Amino acid sequence: MTFSESLKPFFRPGSCAVIGASRKKGKIGNTIFANMLRSFKGPVYPVNPNARKILGKKTYSSVLDIPGKVDIVVIAVPAKIVPEVMRECAEKGVKGAVVISSGFAETGNKALEEEVSKIARTTGPRVIGVNCLGILDTHSGIDMLFMPEEKIERPKKGDIAFISQSGAVGSTVLDMIAEQGVGISSFVSYGNATDVQDYELAEYLAADPKTRVVCAYMEGTKNGKLFLEHMKKATRINPVIVLKAGKTSAGSKAAASHTASMAGSDRVYDAAFKEAGIIRAGDLQELFDMARVLSKQPLAKGNRVLVITNGGGFGVLSADEVEEQNLELAELSTKSKKKLLKILPAYANVSNPLDLVGDADPARYRAALEVALEDDNVDAVLCIGLFQTVSINPKVMDHVLWFNKHKKKPIVFCAAGSEYTSKQLQKLEAKGVPTFTFPEQAVKALKAVVEYKKTNPAFDKLRGFKK
Amino acid sequence: MTFSESLKPFFRPGSCAVIGASRKKGKIGNTIFANMLRSFKGPVYPVNPNARKILGKKTYSSVLDIPGKVDIVVIAVPAKIVPEVMRECAEKGVKGAVVISSGFAETGNKALEEEVSKIARTTGPRVIGVNCLGILDTHSGIDMLFMPEEKIERPKKGDIAFISQSGAVGSTVLDMIAEQGVGISSFVSYGNATDVQDYELAEYLAADPKTRVVCAYMEGTKNGKLFLEHMKKATRINPVIVLKAGKTSAGSKAAASHTASMAGSDRVYDAAFKEAGIIRAGDLQELFDMARVLSKQPLAKGNRVLVITNGGGFGVLSADEVEEQNLELAELSTKSKKKLLKILPAYANVSNPLDLVGDADPARYRAALEVALEDDNVDAVLCIGLFQTVSINPKVMDHVLWFNKHKKKPIVFCAAGSEYTSKQLQKLEAKGVPTFTFPEQAVKALKAVVEYKKTNPAFDKLRGFKK
Repeated sequence: MTFSESLKPFFRPGSCAVIGASRKKGKIGNTIFANMLRSFKGPVYPVNPNARKILGKKTYSSVLDIPGKVDIVVIAVPAKIVPEVMRECAEKGVKGAVVISSGFAETGNKALEEEVSKIARTTGPRVIGVNCLGILDTHSGIDMLFMPEEKIERPKKGDIAFISQSGAVGSTVLDMIAEQGVGISSFVSYGNATDVQDYELAEYLAADPKTRVVCAYMEGTKNGKLFLEHMKKATRINPVIVLKAGKTSAGSKAAASHTASMAGSDRVYDAAFKEAGIIRAGDLQELFDMARVLSKQPLAKGNRVLVITNGGGFGVLSADEVEEQNLELAELSTKSKKKLLKILPAYANVSNPLDLVGDADPARYRAALEVALEDDNVDAVLCIGLFQTVSINPKVMDHVLWFNKHKKKPIVFCAAGSEYTSKQLQKLEAKGVPTFTFPEQAVKALKAVVEYKKTNPAFDKLRGFKK
Repeated sequence: MTFSESLKPFFRPGSCAVIGASRKKGKIGNTIFANMLRSFKGPVYPVNPNARKILGKKTYSSVLDIPGKVDIVVIAVPAKIVPEVMRECAEKGVKGAVVISSGFAETGNKALEEEVSKIARTTGPRVIGVNCLGILDTHSGIDMLFMPEEKIERPKKGDIAFISQSGAVGSTVLDMIAEQGVGISSFVSYGNATDVQDYELAEYLAADPKTRVVCAYMEGTKNGKLFLEHMKKATRINPVIVLKAGKTSAGSKAAASHTASMAGSDRVYDAAFKEAGIIRAGDLQELFDMARVLSKQPLAKGNRVLVITNGGGFGVLSADEVEEQNLELAELSTKSKKKLLKILPAYANVSNPLDLVGDADPARYRAALEVALEDDNVDAVLCIGLFQTVSINPKVMDHVLWFNKHKKKPIVFCAAGSEYTSKQLQKLEAKGVPTFTFPEQAVKALKAVVEYKKTNPAFDKLRGFKK
């Protein structure tokens, strides 16, 4: 059985049971059952030997009493009865169990966790968890998040998958990107990784037709060799971006105490990531910044960036970051320079960063973007438009969208400001141009489409982008 | 004459004239005059030989025709007549001229700029500019920003001064921090620095009673020796944080083309900043993050940070950043550990990061904060409160504010999320606890109160904070 076959039921089940469903509002088993009932389209069965009806639904004493087929279960019962529940699931033919319950190795109960692991390995079902938040899948409607609804927003449908070893990091980031308008395909918090491993989830989600980019927060993996092997396969299908925490000795000690992860030498991880074609993010912001660019923009055929700006200072900051990220400032062709000389004021320099000067109007942006599209020396574009000046106006957005429509070279847009600026950026985001407040942030994110080209040159063709 | 005496009229003038005031809406000379009229309390005279009244105010042909005293002028006339206008100002006894006009060295007219410089050096008035945005001072009501009002928000009154070599960086950042609710004392865009230099502005503003922190964006300075000498004086009064752009060879080339700055070797700048006691920011975000912490929080007596968290992952990320910033994780005393053991669940580790675990309630935060306040091994606190969990609630904010009230040790708060989280953070910001989305960002900002302690150990006493 391939990973896809063994993990698919978790994300595309036909039916589901919540074992430990509860009538009591505020209880985990109540929240999960209510969420699943609200958002999952197939049948959702509550299991609880002490209730006859929960939220109006007939409740079963055991998963074995459910008349229909049950593809997956969510288990939210005290840790000590999890093995018993799992044996019943095996008997019922359940394919996957997400064990939310905590109280295993993370609190010292190693033997109990080993028992769960053994059942998963022998009779099944496969287990995501234990000690996790489980799954949120915007396409199938799976929603196991047990946090109070007013405390956590759900992201909209999208093509970015997110795997998190830490439940808190996972839920926090989901809530945050929901507000930023970033879309998600699937989210998985896998807790102790008792059975299903990070690399299995990454490989499955990389191959998922609803996913275009896989993001992961991890503190350590359990099997370096298998990690490398499966991650290599994953990154050949879709980009995988990883934020690896515990990179310093202080962080690695903290990781050991948090998820019992052998964070391991950061150099070893760094080398493994490179070999596997994994893109490494420096922090949580970068993780999703890179994902936004990879999800919407074509890859860059090389590392030569053209910076277009109406503010010299933002140009200087961009140039600094381009060099720090081992990218290059593109050298414009003679033809491009001639074209630009005609429309720029006499005192402006035609160089890169291409400073359109403070009184730049949309026509100057148009000319610069035409040059950027045509000039073979340019692989990627960072366009900066500071809206505080008199001469710039929203027509610049039309020209950026015109450039973007070609899907020939990646483009990102950068502007800092308040309400007026936010409105312009929202227009671009809605049409697939990733936007950033600061130039450093934009350059770091843009690097992802340069790096991934080396791992998977055919990516654009596969997803129907022009070459 | 000290710098304070020579620069004070720019920020605390009794009267002001706008030379080149215009009747035509949208013109720079109209916007500046309207802004000054609206926000400056003293008399503002319009000067324009071709108008009799502007915005209802009697208009003068020349500054010499104004009957009363004129402390400073804003000059927004064509570059070529600036020297003539300045000579009239000298005759009138004007102390400071802010020259907004461009068309000097930056467009090749070096001789014209030299003429302005010579007048400033010999007869006066002193000149801020040329080719700049001038001054915004929230306390005296000086507002020379000529950007359209709907495009740029003004920050509220505050104690952070901001000096920017780049007008675009300056106005963009003002607009952005206005929306973030960060307060400003004075903002100065000094353009070509024809006369008044960056280090003079920094020294003056550091000594300004309305200012507690000086932030600067610069690409290069004109006189390294004087820069060092004056910056040393400035940093002994109030913290000075500098974002130096043009640190790479690509950035330095871009800076030369932007502000004709000799960006110089970054190592030389780095050494000079260290010697002068300047705190160096890595980017624009960090510049104001550090400023927020220095403006509101006491200094840290050492570099030992306690990280309190209800999410292990955020703890790991914090530990990584603490080490990367050359800070240390505090080792709690035996007494502190005993106290914490009593209130934490049996399986939780009493270590640092201090993981209060996912079901942490306000009482656990209270105990942790009490320990942080009392334990002599703790110099500074990063408190993380992820609000997506069930057990945490807004009472945690009361405990953080209780800690903050003592002004004994610096504290910053970190939480990522959407609306619910933002509301909690706003409560803290309003009461002087700096808040951050990401732990890395929080640690970087916290470093400022560790660094500045070395430069100016008496700072807290001087501003009335407890020792």
